[in-house]
Amino acid sequence: MHLRLINPNTSVPMTEQIEVAAWRASAPDIEISAVCPSEGAASIESHTEEILAAAAVVAEIERAQSAGRRIDGFVIACFGDPGLDAAREVASVPVVGIAEAAMHAATLVGRHFGVVTTLPRTLGRAEDLVRRYGFETACVSLRAADVPVLALEDPSSEAVDAIAAEALRAVEEDRADAIVLGCAGMAGLCRTLEARLGVPVLDGVAASVGLVSGLVRMGAGTSKRGEYAYPPRSMPTSAMPRNRVR
Amino acid sequence: MHLRLINPNTSVPMTEQIEVAAWRASAPDIEISAVCPSEGAASIESHTEEILAAAAVVAEIERAQSAGRRIDGFVIACFGDPGLDAAREVASVPVVGIAEAAMHAATLVGRHFGVVTTLPRTLGRAEDLVRRYGFETACVSLRAADVPVLALEDPSSEAVDAIAAEALRAVEEDRADAIVLGCAGMAGLCRTLEARLGVPVLDGVAASVGLVSGLVRMGAGTSKRGEYAYPPRSMPTSAMPRNRVR
Amino acid sequence: MHLRLINPNTSVPMTEQIEVAAWRASAPDIEISAVCPSEGAASIESHTEEILAAAAVVAEIERAQSAGRRIDGFVIACFGDPGLDAAREVASVPVVGIAEAAMHAATLVGRHFGVVTTLPRTLGRAEDLVRRYGFETACVSLRAADVPVLALEDPSSEAVDAIAAEALRAVEEDRADAIVLGCAGMAGLCRTLEARLGVPVLDGVAASVGLVSGLVRMGAGTSKRGEYAYPPRSMPTSAMPRNRVR
Amino acid sequence: MHLRLINPNTSVPMTEQIEVAAWRASAPDIEISAVCPSEGAASIESHTEEILAAAAVVAEIERAQSAGRRIDGFVIACFGDPGLDAAREVASVPVVGIAEAAMHAATLVGRHFGVVTTLPRTLGRAEDLVRRYGFETACVSLRAADVPVLALEDPSSEAVDAIAAEALRAVEEDRADAIVLGCAGMAGLCRTLEARLGVPVLDGVAASVGLVSGLVRMGAGTSKRGEYAYPPRSMPTSAMPRNRVR
Amino acid sequence: MHLRLINPNTSVPMTEQIEVAAWRASAPDIEISAVCPSEGAASIESHTEEILAAAAVVAEIERAQSAGRRIDGFVIACFGDPGLDAAREVASVPVVGIAEAAMHAATLVGRHFGVVTTLPRTLGRAEDLVRRYGFETACVSLRAADVPVLALEDPSSEAVDAIAAEALRAVEEDRADAIVLGCAGMAGLCRTLEARLGVPVLDGVAASVGLVSGLVRMGAGTSKRGEYAYPPRSMPTSAMPRNRVR
Amino acid sequence: MHLRLINPNTSVPMTEQIEVAAWRASAPDIEISAVCPSEGAASIESHTEEILAAAAVVAEIERAQSAGRRIDGFVIACFGDPGLDAAREVASVPVVGIAEAAMHAATLVGRHFGVVTTLPRTLGRAEDLVRRYGFETACVSLRAADVPVLALEDPSSEAVDAIAAEALRAVEEDRADAIVLGCAGMAGLCRTLEARLGVPVLDGVAASVGLVSGLVRMGAGTSKRGEYAYPPRSMPTSAMPRNRVR
Repeated sequence: MHLRLINPNTSVPMTEQIEVAAWRASAPDIEISAVCPSEGAASIESHTEEILAAAAVVAEIERAQSAGRRIDGFVIACFGDPGLDAAREVASVPVVGIAEAAMHAATLVGRHFGVVTTLPRTLGRAEDLVRRYGFETACVSLRAADVPVLALEDPSSEAVDAIAAEALRAVEEDRADAIVLGCAGMAGLCRTLEARLGVPVLDGVAASVGLVSGLVRMGAGTSKRGEYAYPPRSMPTSAMPRNRVR
Repeated sequence: MHLRLINPNTSVPMTEQIEVAAWRASAPDIEISAVCPSEGAASIESHTEEILAAAAVVAEIERAQSAGRRIDGFVIACFGDPGLDAAREVASVPVVGIAEAAMHAATLVGRHFGVVTTLPRTLGRAEDLVRRYGFETACVSLRAADVPVLALEDPSSEAVDAIAAEALRAVEEDRADAIVLGCAGMAGLCRTLEARLGVPVLDGVAASVGLVSGLVRMGAGTSKRGEYAYPPRSMPTSAMPRNRVR
Repeated sequence: MHLRLINPNTSVPMTEQIEVAAWRASAPDIEISAVCPSEGAASIESHTEEILAAAAVVAEIERAQSAGRRIDGFVIACFGDPGLDAAREVASVPVVGIAEAAMHAATLVGRHFGVVTTLPRTLGRAEDLVRRYGFETACVSLRAADVPVLALEDPSSEAVDAIAAEALRAVEEDRADAIVLGCAGMAGLCRTLEARLGVPVLDGVAASVGLVSGLVRMGAGTSKRGEYAYPPRSMPTSAMPRNRVR
Repeated sequence: MHLRLINPNTSVPMTEQIEVAAWRASAPDIEISAVCPSEGAASIESHTEEILAAAAVVAEIERAQSAGRRIDGFVIACFGDPGLDAAREVASVPVVGIAEAAMHAATLVGRHFGVVTTLPRTLGRAEDLVRRYGFETACVSLRAADVPVLALEDPSSEAVDAIAAEALRAVEEDRADAIVLGCAGMAGLCRTLEARLGVPVLDGVAASVGLVSGLVRMGAGTSKRGEYAYPPRSMPTSAMPRNRVR
Repeated sequence: MHLRLINPNTSVPMTEQIEVAAWRASAPDIEISAVCPSEGAASIESHTEEILAAAAVVAEIERAQSAGRRIDGFVIACFGDPGLDAAREVASVPVVGIAEAAMHAATLVGRHFGVVTTLPRTLGRAEDLVRRYGFETACVSLRAADVPVLALEDPSSEAVDAIAAEALRAVEEDRADAIVLGCAGMAGLCRTLEARLGVPVLDGVAASVGLVSGLVRMGAGTSKRGEYAYPPRSMPTSAMPRNRVR
Repeated sequence: MHLRLINPNTSVPMTEQIEVAAWRASAPDIEISAVCPSEGAASIESHTEEILAAAAVVAEIERAQSAGRRIDGFVIACFGDPGLDAAREVASVPVVGIAEAAMHAATLVGRHFGVVTTLPRTLGRAEDLVRRYGFETACVSLRAADVPVLALEDPSSEAVDAIAAEALRAVEEDRADAIVLGCAGMAGLCRTLEARLGVPVLDGVAASVGLVSGLVRMGAGTSKRGEYAYPPRSMPTSAMPRNRVR
């Protein structure tokens, strides 16, 4: 089985990190490839960049489908799940977003989860996703560590401490019994944070591999009746961000 | 007061019709201008096209703001309210979407409203908006007339009958006491449909003029604290669809 | 266009203040008149007084409609929106309440709003209205400044500081990005509070003028099919509080 | 224990019928008295009449409390529960509404209930009450038999058949497994309808006696902290509908 | 009327206390009998013990129904309402749970209630019940005193202080205006806590007597159409916990 | 990885069928074993049998954990997810229910799903699960084929036609774009029904393998802080249904 992860920002180091995180959570018969666009947003930290990210996701799926190689499932590796509905329209195979995946997983290991994101301005998007997926009751805490996405690439930054501090408040003040990491760039922090917090810490990249491969194995594709039928027109090539296949 | 309406599809006739509908619902001291992109989607009938529309909306606001002329408020003249959150980020003046506007207006003239859209595949987006705006209880009916957007430009089409038939079912079967028209292209049908149905029929273009001009008059701009603060980076020009100023 | 605002308490100074606030937010072609009953409750601060207020609202609409002068829309200028459903029954033109109007406006300028009212005992009514209008998710804070309504008429009182303090807690602790003022008597405080808080502050009197004039311009009247059809019997004159036309 | 039932319309036969229905559902140590105003609305079938009814309820409680005789609990014997919040403010003993009572009872004997009311225009009020009491999930059907309230006094009318027909649709089409009768005047129909429908049929008059006497026996009065504290001012006598003690 | 209360844990002192609490809240024509199983869980403080409790409840109802003596209603006297749905299936007379009863009663005496339970691990079950019964809006506080159930039998323990402290936080921080006691073993604390808190304190044992006797007097039995029809097969005797009739 | 599926009814053929369905959806490194109790309920079709099933699930987990063999995750293979909360308490490894799993999967392949169960009396339990998992908006249809569980073992029965008919109504009348099969015994019908219906048909047995193995691979265990901590006392052996290891 071949799964393609799409990081819609242009950070190559983050894309590599995503690929590793996905690979670690994969069954032995799964091949993982991660890609990112070669131009577009360096990180997705505003509603405006979310639009660029959505366009990048759709472009990559269309490009991948017109290339010859078989892909069995797609993952949108950005916590806002940008372009998820459009991706389900254009893809012929299952698509899962990492926010969606982490939240689903969190509800299987505890009653209440908290989300810890990067900048406060992204909390609105997270709240929309929580409602869209049905987890208003399960999600008891939405917190931002006030850390820019790209600071996560710098091991000397104080990002981890800031994230841990908010996660602890989610557990102790808001009664979360599991934590969802609100950025693909946090994938490497699960074990460290679990050790500090004493509750499960869920990364959406790893979670998405389980969800999408599960759909593939059970033969469940996106419903092509109605809303997610192939769109009447493709996205024009001129509107597609260019990508960098890795 | 100068209000700018943005039709994110490329149809010039529809843009002109939108401008007229807005002008008819305006106070005497309001100037209306409507624009559409010169390239992009001919109509917005899929999640994929919704992304193009969102990019077109943001591009037009940024372009308008860097041009010299004063604009007091923006309207997104497409029923999916594409790019509304991003528009509130980038605009310095109030922004309202027509779906939002029509739904707000409908709750002021009745307890329950129904939405009649074009193609069934757009119902999912409408459902998302209903929840986002808080109208799950007020909205008792989401129906599609199964009419493509561009058929609305053709007076000889049977589009009006199809829309009236679904609206009637919303009233009689689903107990709607007002009808929201689910496409900017339906703006001209209000009076005809009201005569047939006996309940108020709300067009978002007219409704949005009242809402956004009201915000301007009371001095209420978008909150720039937190989520809708100006984004850290502008949308790159290369990602902006070109437009056609009218 | 002639809009009639109904203050259902007997305070003439508050009625004059309401008229001014409405006039300031009006288009040039709008005429404003505000009235209050000559007997009834001095202020509306309990559920019991809410009933008197509701009766006063209906009485004034019936009286206005039987008088000869044309009125194009009514506003209920009391934050509990007393008698709103009944007013929609008896009026032939659109009716909007100021709580309703301020909350609608708040959702157009931010994701989350907070309400700051006068006495704590009025919070229950505010909570009912929030749910009735669909804003449970948007409204993240309901706070009382513990200030009686009539203290708002006294410039030397500490009412403004108390209101500002609760509004600040709504912003900082509850994550509101806009504030709704929970009393018609607070209409004059918007600019002062905005300067202190850094977020939009919405007054329902100003907001209601935009909403109801918008409905008039788009030709949208209350649905007279079903619930809001004219009532089978008028309110008996003996049950009507007397009023003072201004 | 002495319970006072307040029928807020002026129908003496209906008041007598309410007294009998309450007495039949009472423990042996309970005395029942029912009253109605001597002037006011003949029946409560509009939002406007609901205001008169609310005033009548508050007036009767204040009158009863200033008379010398001990009363242990009040029942508002009109399905819209008019004035319930105000009644809890002014009363020193527990108050229950019959809509509230019937809905609570219905959730104890089945998962889903349906309400059958009189005129369609009263459905909006019923929907508000369902939400206010928390029964949106439990209540799966709101139907009107299109029967005026006073037709229920006429044994030769076809009212019973019309009510039975809607109740049957609630059971078979909407999956209700219990029926709530939506008018105090239907109190005598329970057994007849149960025999026809095969599911429990709940009358609020009987249900309210159980609820309010239960509160009295367990020593639970209305919380006087906050919202339901005695109001700062009584209702002025001039605003009180006159009553007829029976 | 004969009501049978079922304490599903094996504590005889708690069963006796439950019987007394029920008797105190009963009308003079009601006979009360309380039973508990002779083997099973000493207290119900985990989901695992909840299963044992549910089995004990069903066993006792089946045993009571096959014995000759008439029983008019059952009460499940454990705050998790274990086995309530199954009890409604097997019983021919009404069944009420004490959590359900206390929550219903709380909504009749205030707008917002708080629940104070024993161990924090039981809060999840309480949250499920709140949603099942429709009281998500009414219930504003779920708190645990961190007191084991059996400590409630020891008058020298500090349990009462711990419960009072959490109840006070529910009132002052969470705005509860009534308190629900989250354990049958707390039945004796109502008056003490009310004196300390100044708001109504509701015990489910007393509340359930009012509810179930009210259903009996109004002739309302569990709907036997559909979900609560008698089960196709009885619980096998081998699966029934033995009981101790008192 | 070794996954243990627990069928809580005593049907050996159904247990074998479950094992096969799970094995078919497994990665190559997964070993599957399915067990059922040797005494207990022949099928789970009432709330009373649900209690037996819950006890059987807990007993099997405790038995498996005290036996020497390593198990990496448990699946509760009965659509009511009996005993799921208790199972998370007693298990040291992740536990997933098949209703939960199928519903999660359905939300990944469409916007709206419908559930088709066996007997109508089981719909209440399904509705509870839908709410517990957060899928009230996603689940638009709950239908029963009126087929007893054990009829599914009989290939000559008309069960498949009855299930297909209800599923078709869910798609066409209720707008489901995916179908969830509401019984472990329906696992073999997915492909047949998909061919007839043209939308994805989800079986919980297959879906649960993907979910629970995904949790194992990402190292996510049940949160042992709070609600799902190991229970203070084990289930007494006398309360455990005996089992049959396969």
